[in-house]
Amino acid sequence: MRHLLSTKDLSRESAIRLLDIAEDMAEVQNREVKKLPTLRGKTVVNLFFEDSTRTRISFEAAAKRLSADVINFSAKGSSVSKGESLKDTAQTLQAMGADGVVIRHQSSGAPFTLATSGWIDAGVINAGDGMHEHPTQALLDAFTMRRRLHGEASRGKALDGVAVTIVGDILHSRVARSNVWLLDTLGAEVTLVAPPTLVPVDVSGWPVAVGYDLDEAIDDGVPDVLMMLRIQGERMHAAFFPNEREYSRTWGLDDERLARLAGDTIVMHPGPMNRGLEISAAAADSPRSTVREQVANGVSVRMAALYLLLAGEES
Amino acid sequence: MRHLLSTKDLSRESAIRLLDIAEDMAEVQNREVKKLPTLRGKTVVNLFFEDSTRTRISFEAAAKRLSADVINFSAKGSSVSKGESLKDTAQTLQAMGADGVVIRHQSSGAPFTLATSGWIDAGVINAGDGMHEHPTQALLDAFTMRRRLHGEASRGKALDGVAVTIVGDILHSRVARSNVWLLDTLGAEVTLVAPPTLVPVDVSGWPVAVGYDLDEAIDDGVPDVLMMLRIQGERMHAAFFPNEREYSRTWGLDDERLARLAGDTIVMHPGPMNRGLEISAAAADSPRSTVREQVANGVSVRMAALYLLLAGEES
Amino acid sequence: MRHLLSTKDLSRESAIRLLDIAEDMAEVQNREVKKLPTLRGKTVVNLFFEDSTRTRISFEAAAKRLSADVINFSAKGSSVSKGESLKDTAQTLQAMGADGVVIRHQSSGAPFTLATSGWIDAGVINAGDGMHEHPTQALLDAFTMRRRLHGEASRGKALDGVAVTIVGDILHSRVARSNVWLLDTLGAEVTLVAPPTLVPVDVSGWPVAVGYDLDEAIDDGVPDVLMMLRIQGERMHAAFFPNEREYSRTWGLDDERLARLAGDTIVMHPGPMNRGLEISAAAADSPRSTVREQVANGVSVRMAALYLLLAGEES
Repeated sequence: MRHLLSTKDLSRESAIRLLDIAEDMAEVQNREVKKLPTLRGKTVVNLFFEDSTRTRISFEAAAKRLSADVINFSAKGSSVSKGESLKDTAQTLQAMGADGVVIRHQSSGAPFTLATSGWIDAGVINAGDGMHEHPTQALLDAFTMRRRLHGEASRGKALDGVAVTIVGDILHSRVARSNVWLLDTLGAEVTLVAPPTLVPVDVSGWPVAVGYDLDEAIDDGVPDVLMMLRIQGERMHAAFFPNEREYSRTWGLDDERLARLAGDTIVMHPGPMNRGLEISAAAADSPRSTVREQVANGVSVRMAALYLLLAGEES
Repeated sequence: MRHLLSTKDLSRESAIRLLDIAEDMAEVQNREVKKLPTLRGKTVVNLFFEDSTRTRISFEAAAKRLSADVINFSAKGSSVSKGESLKDTAQTLQAMGADGVVIRHQSSGAPFTLATSGWIDAGVINAGDGMHEHPTQALLDAFTMRRRLHGEASRGKALDGVAVTIVGDILHSRVARSNVWLLDTLGAEVTLVAPPTLVPVDVSGWPVAVGYDLDEAIDDGVPDVLMMLRIQGERMHAAFFPNEREYSRTWGLDDERLARLAGDTIVMHPGPMNRGLEISAAAADSPRSTVREQVANGVSVRMAALYLLLAGEES
Repeated sequence: MRHLLSTKDLSRESAIRLLDIAEDMAEVQNREVKKLPTLRGKTVVNLFFEDSTRTRISFEAAAKRLSADVINFSAKGSSVSKGESLKDTAQTLQAMGADGVVIRHQSSGAPFTLATSGWIDAGVINAGDGMHEHPTQALLDAFTMRRRLHGEASRGKALDGVAVTIVGDILHSRVARSNVWLLDTLGAEVTLVAPPTLVPVDVSGWPVAVGYDLDEAIDDGVPDVLMMLRIQGERMHAAFFPNEREYSRTWGLDDERLARLAGDTIVMHPGPMNRGLEISAAAADSPRSTVREQVANGVSVRMAALYLLLAGEES
């Protein structure tokens, strides 16, 4: 694997292989010394054009547990904000000997440009680009589902026939997009549930069903996985949701809906959660919730991605 | 030791044990390679909700000299500022496998909540919370006093009978509070000297004497230790101190007062100093001053605390 | 070598020795594991009073590849901004056991003060001070010229007789100053080309020729090296350059001038570039351009400087 830019172009075989290596990494993290020498002498740069402490420290922990040197490069206050182009930034990192670049960018496609322009030899991981993709989030979500469903026997398995319902602001969500492509590749059946105004216009080309009623989705759909998306206040149009209570009432996983979930439905959220808005505190903390597992698995999945990109598949 | 949240609940035995381990750490720092492998594979997160470069880099240096991986998490610009609760932040760090969390928070009690809520297994060190406590500062102060008084023969010793006078804004000072409790536990006799308006209302329950005249405290009290607190401009009421010269004249350790100190009185300050305000340049730089020793001892004391919390007492 | 503060006081022998060690460091960076254990247990502090992500990460990469522990200290939001003096900051770093301090400061002379005041034992590297010097930039420039001219046979060589023309805002440029002194020491012949208002008044004391016409400098001067300086918008006076196009037309290396360069003239730029302003995209990306080599060589040169200061010349 040269880069990890999207889940749309990830083969079923590559995805399962990455998830299996993440299982190995999860074992390392249960050890007394949760560290491998694999990437000693390699340099990983966290190139963040948008703030995202959670994602940055997850990648930082992953890289350090593989013994890589990590350099954090926040584009704020850097020459980037003085007008330096992505090309010059890339060539600078290349020249400094970066082996891996983890990029978060507000523009869809920036990681792809970085990886395919020839500016850089480093392996590139997309850590979220605009409204496009966030592939490691989808991989950690798939890893989490697989573990909940198959436990110790997860290795080698996909998610064939698993019913996943994703709820909320699909339109602006790179998490939703990355999940849709990966889940389809792994054989899951995806339903999107959202206000009509927050469903992308091109959804007819996606391998999903679309619904507009959360209660129906819960009662009739009986999903194996209910994934609640984060509401991003800055992207919401006041016209559609006069207030948060209204959103929560129509599109939130509140206590009443939680009580109606089928016996083994799990509840996922990419975090950080708006407790009381898209998800109630009871739902967030219930045994159905995988929120904490998702964070823990995020480190394992990112270790696997860094391993595959920087150590080579032969090791 | 599971956590280090306050000096109020620290036993005399535990305090002396920590100071003794800090002596060992001080020796390590005099070596050519000032590093121990003790915490290899452990992850220490510096979770700072308030800026404090000095404290952060002291803990960072301490953790790195024990070979831990260090992740700096400044709450500014993070999801915390997007409304994430301390609980969710804690659970995120727990899930990422943090072994130790060093927390600085503007709210008194936040470290206690973090440590005792069951959200997290990591050892928690309070690096300053509101107007409550700053235990490693008090421990490094005690370490510094012990070394000045007992030199090479410090191990195992307390501070019985040592007269310590703390001067300045007691009301807002977590440094003063942590020092009062620890010094009392170690047998020292503490006098607070401050403007009446800057003495806490509950001081009658503290194991201290209170005075309101710095000249009297110096001339009649003959302290072994004179600890000048930092004036924090943003917390001062203009009404009480029409200007800095006035404060300095009444409550500052100026050159004239410095000259009147008894032969072996030492002068302490937690830093950063306002030279010319609460302490004159001559006082700050005199042989009586322990300011630089305090900073150096801070790294040793923090190494000892991280060692006790993360390596276990058996090693 | 105790400190690296300026190139003005660097002997020819010391400069060549540093460049030769940088050759060794460049070889290390071509290895599979591009890391040496040389500075294990040493602490390098990046003390940046001005933002400069490029310079900071170059030093950070250099220090980490020598296995030093690196602590980033941005003066923004630190006690420095609360009025702490450079002296107290220095003594704090000293007390924490810093072995090396890399300082970037807005005031000319701050690194010299830090190194020579007796406040600190650490080796000090000037990473840019006001309008004074930026010695590692000049050293990496010299290293880059030497490699372009002598290739594999660079070791031990100087730059005798090499014609270097530096173009742009000389007045405000610490890069220009450091280059002038080092290039003179290494035997090169330097010409400055700039608008009369951007030539320093004391230039008559410099070992340089001065010109005011870029076309003449290119056509008649036939430089071996053409070094374009970065235009720093905030320092330009609107009166002299009514707009960027005007500057570019008179003082920029545009495509037309690029085409007229002699066969083997190389084009240098310290970065970050304003493409289309002082240098055209074609010039920046042409085979004549050493921009990327400069960045790569920057890490090697900084490794050499850290090695000489912190490991001692005997090793």
